[in-house]
Amino acid sequence: MSKTVTAGVVVIGDEILSGRTRDINIQQIAQFLAPLGISLLECRVVTDQQDAIVEAVRALAARCDYVFTTGGIGPTHDDITADAVAAAFGRSIAVREDARAILEAWYAGSGTEITDARLRMARIPEGAALIDNPVTGAPGFQVENVFVLAGVPKIARGMLEDVAPRLTRGAVTHSLTVRLENAREGDIAEALQSIQDRHEGVSLGSYPWFEDDGEGGFRRGVALVARGTDEAALEQVRGELEGLKTS
Amino acid sequence: MSKTVTAGVVVIGDEILSGRTRDINIQQIAQFLAPLGISLLECRVVTDQQDAIVEAVRALAARCDYVFTTGGIGPTHDDITADAVAAAFGRSIAVREDARAILEAWYAGSGTEITDARLRMARIPEGAALIDNPVTGAPGFQVENVFVLAGVPKIARGMLEDVAPRLTRGAVTHSLTVRLENAREGDIAEALQSIQDRHEGVSLGSYPWFEDDGEGGFRRGVALVARGTDEAALEQVRGELEGLKTS
Repeated sequence: MSKTVTAGVVVIGDEILSGRTRDINIQQIAQFLAPLGISLLECRVVTDQQDAIVEAVRALAARCDYVFTTGGIGPTHDDITADAVAAAFGRSIAVREDARAILEAWYAGSGTEITDARLRMARIPEGAALIDNPVTGAPGFQVENVFVLAGVPKIARGMLEDVAPRLTRGAVTHSLTVRLENAREGDIAEALQSIQDRHEGVSLGSYPWFEDDGEGGFRRGVALVARGTDEAALEQVRGELEGLKTS
Repeated sequence: MSKTVTAGVVVIGDEILSGRTRDINIQQIAQFLAPLGISLLECRVVTDQQDAIVEAVRALAARCDYVFTTGGIGPTHDDITADAVAAAFGRSIAVREDARAILEAWYAGSGTEITDARLRMARIPEGAALIDNPVTGAPGFQVENVFVLAGVPKIARGMLEDVAPRLTRGAVTHSLTVRLENAREGDIAEALQSIQDRHEGVSLGSYPWFEDDGEGGFRRGVALVARGTDEAALEQVRGELEGLKTS
């Protein structure tokens, strides 16, 4: 059995905390990592403050095999992630020539001037490995087990392609869902517990749902989700969960 | 000037971490609290494990004025939030008669049997205050500055109505957005920094956006978001931000 590989996500963060924007990077990163056998262990959304970023990065870098940060690596005054990650690892940070060359080549194509602000995006912590940005050019970077990605979801997604080959893969967690229409958790809880008790290597989650029925009432049911690395065991659990439909 | 009031959110958590579901409770809670003058300071998404929940609840309860947890308070085996929150505060937990009475009255209406599983939802930490659940009956609860809500977004939303009167309100943070079509952050960064420097009480965020233009290319721009408690100062900043459109 290959080992469990874990990851954490640090979302930076004011735009999400204010409620103006709904985060999608956590889900996007989870879905990208799942087929690689890497599971999210914890995510944090923190303010755009250096202390907050440093604390979250250090905590998750110590606890997870990999950490992904999103946001705060653009050219404006509120982009402080690179400095914060450098500080988290006690590294210096300055404009690096390889990053500058990437920016110059990228902007040369469109005749865009490299302002001092754009040069901020070439500030990379000492010893970091760059991450290719196929969408807007300015690279992300990796320091130890921390991958620093853009906040714009399409750019973050593009960067993940360059990160994937650097990751150790683990045992892939498979999942399946059995939906029980009209079921109520309180009626199936004991049977569900019993199924869980018989299958140690499978993790069973129960998620009630409610929907407007369009006629002033609502429909309800329960989604049962089984997760595990052993596909044969999962199929056996599927049969038992479907048996709850008629019980 | 009234004081800043802060809140944290702990999302419990496997269903979000697996990537199967995209969280909406963080945004929902942020948007509910904003008009009350309460700002989110940090959010954590943790696994459905007692140690993980205890650690996150303790950390945010110490750092924020209020903490909201979502998820894990139903009748099934994977619902362990009540036990975890009791453990976080060193309190005992057992079926409480007032919570049982609420469940009995709720289920009597529909002739639903109160199973042992449903009685689990009347297990409330010692000394906690109940939170009314207008959607499905089973109450949430409050221990010190921690409010334990359901994970189903509609139920969590209903519970917030009963929580609101218990919260000390702070100075409301207002925000405004100026969208610059076709702008690029690297071209406006210096002017933006200068506006930020002139307005200490206002926080300026810069968020680039990209959209498919439907013709194989993409449109781009920057959303500038100003936040602060002083509406007159925000209006002045709005004028300066709009000036960037023509610069």
